[in-house]
Amino acid sequence: MYKVFGDMLSGNCYKVKLLMQFLGLEHEWIPVDILAKETHTDEFKHRNPNTRIPVIELEDGRYLWESNAILNYLAEGTDFLPQERYARAQVLQWQFFEQYSHEPYIATARYINKYLGLPKEREAEYHGKQAGGWKALAVMEGHLAENRFFLGDKVTIADISLYAYTHVADEGGFDLSEYANIQRWFKDVEGIPGYIKMARENA
Amino acid sequence: MYKVFGDMLSGNCYKVKLLMQFLGLEHEWIPVDILAKETHTDEFKHRNPNTRIPVIELEDGRYLWESNAILNYLAEGTDFLPQERYARAQVLQWQFFEQYSHEPYIATARYINKYLGLPKEREAEYHGKQAGGWKALAVMEGHLAENRFFLGDKVTIADISLYAYTHVADEGGFDLSEYANIQRWFKDVEGIPGYIKMARENA
Ligand SMILES: N[C@@H](CCC(=O)N[C@@H](CS)C(=O)NCC(=O)O)C(=O)O
Ligand SMILES: N[C@@H](CCC(=O)N[C@@H](CS)C(=O)NCC(=O)O)C(=O)O
Repeated sequence: MYKVFGDMLSGNCYKVKLLMQFLGLEHEWIPVDILAKETHTDEFKHRNPNTRIPVIELEDGRYLWESNAILNYLAEGTDFLPQERYARAQVLQWQFFEQYSHEPYIATARYINKYLGLPKEREAEYHGKQAGGWKALAVMEGHLAENRFFLGDKVTIADISLYAYTHVADEGGFDLSEYANIQRWFKDVEGIPGYIKMARENA
Repeated sequence: MYKVFGDMLSGNCYKVKLLMQFLGLEHEWIPVDILAKETHTDEFKHRNPNTRIPVIELEDGRYLWESNAILNYLAEGTDFLPQERYARAQVLQWQFFEQYSHEPYIATARYINKYLGLPKEREAEYHGKQAGGWKALAVMEGHLAENRFFLGDKVTIADISLYAYTHVADEGGFDLSEYANIQRWFKDVEGIPGYIKMARENA
């Protein structure tokens, strides 16, 4: 059985949880407290020297980290990852977009606002994240005006990667109520059998 | 023939150039001036709505963007991208590490220092990039102490992704002369037939 080291409040970890639900993959979820620096112990660095979650442990004890790499591994051979060469590269294009142009703005703004309570000394940083976040959201809204999912008619792991922090972007100051295509896409993702909500509070 | 929209001074573009050299892929290189905002025209947004280079145009006119997605596309079926599922996911793990934990620190510090000449108003940002950059470099040095290349004995596109900005990290304030394993790995990458240097000045 897979083991997942994660935190259900983290969007990067939720990506893995959501795909496992869609695929019906049994797994053990091992909660890791990042605020208590649990990813910085020697034991944890053996799993991921970059001291981050999520990390997955395969049945044979090998580890894999980086949320989007884990999604690619788990989705291989399923409907969530196409076989065709250009389609696969497009999945990666949107996942690298997510990690480079979306997550560092939207997830970080949400973290500063929701978890840290927007403290005075991080206000400038929080405001500095808004323009980049809106730019990424505009790219998504434009693409979803012409496509049901990121790759077209069928849901892929590119949607899961982008859904994770977009659907809670309001918690980072990004009110998406006027973004009709993103709203429609939220509903399409939420209608997939197996869908579960992201935890909103630590249990 | 492939068309590549890029700038030879950009490490993200150099990744694509280097792989094409290793694979002996003919292509037309179309220089794009980012400082002149050439990625922000309507014509360019049709290639990449996220207004960035590199972008590749396939023979049939389709586009693909995000440097690491392009590498995966081009390397498919070659020795630079393994077929086995876990190995492929590890290639992605290191490429997502590059985009999330390495490039935003090392490439950005280099840009502020080398291209902008470390202006006063960006000094704080420049210094703020150092800790994250050193952390990524330490992860690499540790891994390369036990592995010739990132995936083990054989070079893959994970090495190309990480080589691009690491080998010019000194230009961002990261002196790697004491990092023996990274130095050894530089030589191994530079010994691959077809290797070309990154341009150091715009021609
Ligand atoms: N690029 C990584 C990002 C992972 C990441 O930043 N995880 C955070 C939690 S959301 C973490 O583990 N932080 C702990 C730390 O940096 O000490 C991924 O997609 O997996
Ligand atoms: N994650 C992207 C980053 C590409 C990127 O940021 N490119 C820069 C040049 S190195 C660019 O085009 N900047 C133009 C702009 O943002 O206006 C990739 O790996 O391709």
